[in-house]
Amino acid sequence: MVPLNEEMILNAVAADNGRLPSTVLIRPGDDMALLEWPSNRLLCAVDQVVVGVHVTTSTPIELIARKAVARNLSDVAAMGALPVAILACATLPVAMTQEAAHELLASVRQWGREFGAPLIGGDTTIHTDVAAPLVLSITVLATPRTDGIVVTRSGACVGDLLIVSGALGGSFGEEGLGRHLTFTPRVRAAQTLIDALGTRVHAMMDLSDGLGVDSGRMMHASSQKGGCALQAQFLAEQIPCQCGVTLSCALGDGEDYELLAAIDGRAAAPSGFTVVGQVVARAESDPRLAVVLIGDECEDATQLGWTHGSK
Amino acid sequence: MVPLNEEMILNAVAADNGRLPSTVLIRPGDDMALLEWPSNRLLCAVDQVVVGVHVTTSTPIELIARKAVARNLSDVAAMGALPVAILACATLPVAMTQEAAHELLASVRQWGREFGAPLIGGDTTIHTDVAAPLVLSITVLATPRTDGIVVTRSGACVGDLLIVSGALGGSFGEEGLGRHLTFTPRVRAAQTLIDALGTRVHAMMDLSDGLGVDSGRMMHASSQKGGCALQAQFLAEQIPCQCGVTLSCALGDGEDYELLAAIDGRAAAPSGFTVVGQVVARAESDPRLAVVLIGDECEDATQLGWTHGSK
Repeated sequence: MVPLNEEMILNAVAADNGRLPSTVLIRPGDDMALLEWPSNRLLCAVDQVVVGVHVTTSTPIELIARKAVARNLSDVAAMGALPVAILACATLPVAMTQEAAHELLASVRQWGREFGAPLIGGDTTIHTDVAAPLVLSITVLATPRTDGIVVTRSGACVGDLLIVSGALGGSFGEEGLGRHLTFTPRVRAAQTLIDALGTRVHAMMDLSDGLGVDSGRMMHASSQKGGCALQAQFLAEQIPCQCGVTLSCALGDGEDYELLAAIDGRAAAPSGFTVVGQVVARAESDPRLAVVLIGDECEDATQLGWTHGSK
Repeated sequence: MVPLNEEMILNAVAADNGRLPSTVLIRPGDDMALLEWPSNRLLCAVDQVVVGVHVTTSTPIELIARKAVARNLSDVAAMGALPVAILACATLPVAMTQEAAHELLASVRQWGREFGAPLIGGDTTIHTDVAAPLVLSITVLATPRTDGIVVTRSGACVGDLLIVSGALGGSFGEEGLGRHLTFTPRVRAAQTLIDALGTRVHAMMDLSDGLGVDSGRMMHASSQKGGCALQAQFLAEQIPCQCGVTLSCALGDGEDYELLAAIDGRAAAPSGFTVVGQVVARAESDPRLAVVLIGDECEDATQLGWTHGSK
């Protein structure tokens, strides 16, 4: 068991430089990486996985790395963009072994490559507090499609159909080892959707806090942008639930990492997507951003989601 | 005292969107930010500040934010590049107040703007472990100069002069409240240097682990690149020491965040830079990457620096 040493970890990262694409002109080992940039637009985001928050102390290291990378690629999918590269920033627990640190970074690199976003830079530090957990943040860089289409979450209109890319709910799984650790970011599904519908894809986002809460966010953003109060209206029987998952969990559980899109009401959802509802005008007296119709009942769908830090 | 709530923090970040430059086409609040990119090259890096490692629990929040931003801008300076934007990823202690979290992000934004790199995105999470410290990682995006010059750390040659941009040592200061919290990244000095010397600036890096260790890294990288074993040779009396700092500390203390550059031996260092030594060929029998000449003595300068995790 080799004790942690940052320099050895950084050297191990640089040792794989030969496998990077030729568009990476300056590779790990210098103060910054230099990339040939394929367009005159750039998309970027950062997201993190913290042990104790997003994963547990017993989550295998490879899956921690995978989740951290995949969450970011899910954001790329949500914009309809194409991934280019990732950077990783790791704060390691004092008690972590050198082998485990290497495994973490090798896994980040492997999953980045697997998902089309090679690891081009990063930073590693070791906590001083013996109880402090692993923090792994990933920055992702992406480029728009060649047709320039980028899909925000704020373009939904009255009459749009709401569609999702897969079955929802129960992602955390028994003992926390569920789909949230093994999902594939929907980069290809997003491209298929835009290939088929072009600018008739009005709004898109990935589902991280549950369909109820997240659709409410899309309605909020789109209402602000369009100047018209919107509401997401779901039909209970149309929502694809994961096996053994209740409707309430399908609407309320977080970490599905499926796509939610609002498409032109006259368009047909391509294969792989399910229509789950529509966008309607919201009455002034109705504060609800998302509702679900269950028989004759109409329930607030935003009360079921998982908001970080409030629970 | 308001308890922490991530969504309120994110909303506060988005509330300042109106002040972002018009080149930020999609602003905080969506899954990713979208930027007009000013060239066909992109530089990026990520660096972090962790309470207990880089700052203490008593460091004022504004200075934690400042240091996190400034460290990254120092990397931009080191490449001779021009800053474009930053993203921030914060893992907040459980006991942090909402006000403190807002101050942290407002400070990141303010210092980003001050240093020419507006905050265009980020992520915030709250630790579950009550003892876990604040982790703040910053990603910086930069673009090359219009003449395309980018300076790596691997271009030093035999005969080059070694120059530094300021006085060294004692950055941590008494009680840890020294220059490492308040330095200004040398972005302008780097530009002045390249404006004056162009491609005669052969190599450059910022000093984070001490002149001795860092110059050794430059020699190592340049030896590998150029295929010739190099050594940095400093003259003790030429090294600019901060007031009250010994030579040993000027060579060995970390966190100077001054620039070290190797320039063509026939060039003159512009105003603001001091010649501290030269690059020489290293004898096969000599493993030392950097030495300092003190009178008749020649000492290993790399043994004095601060290597993360080894001390």
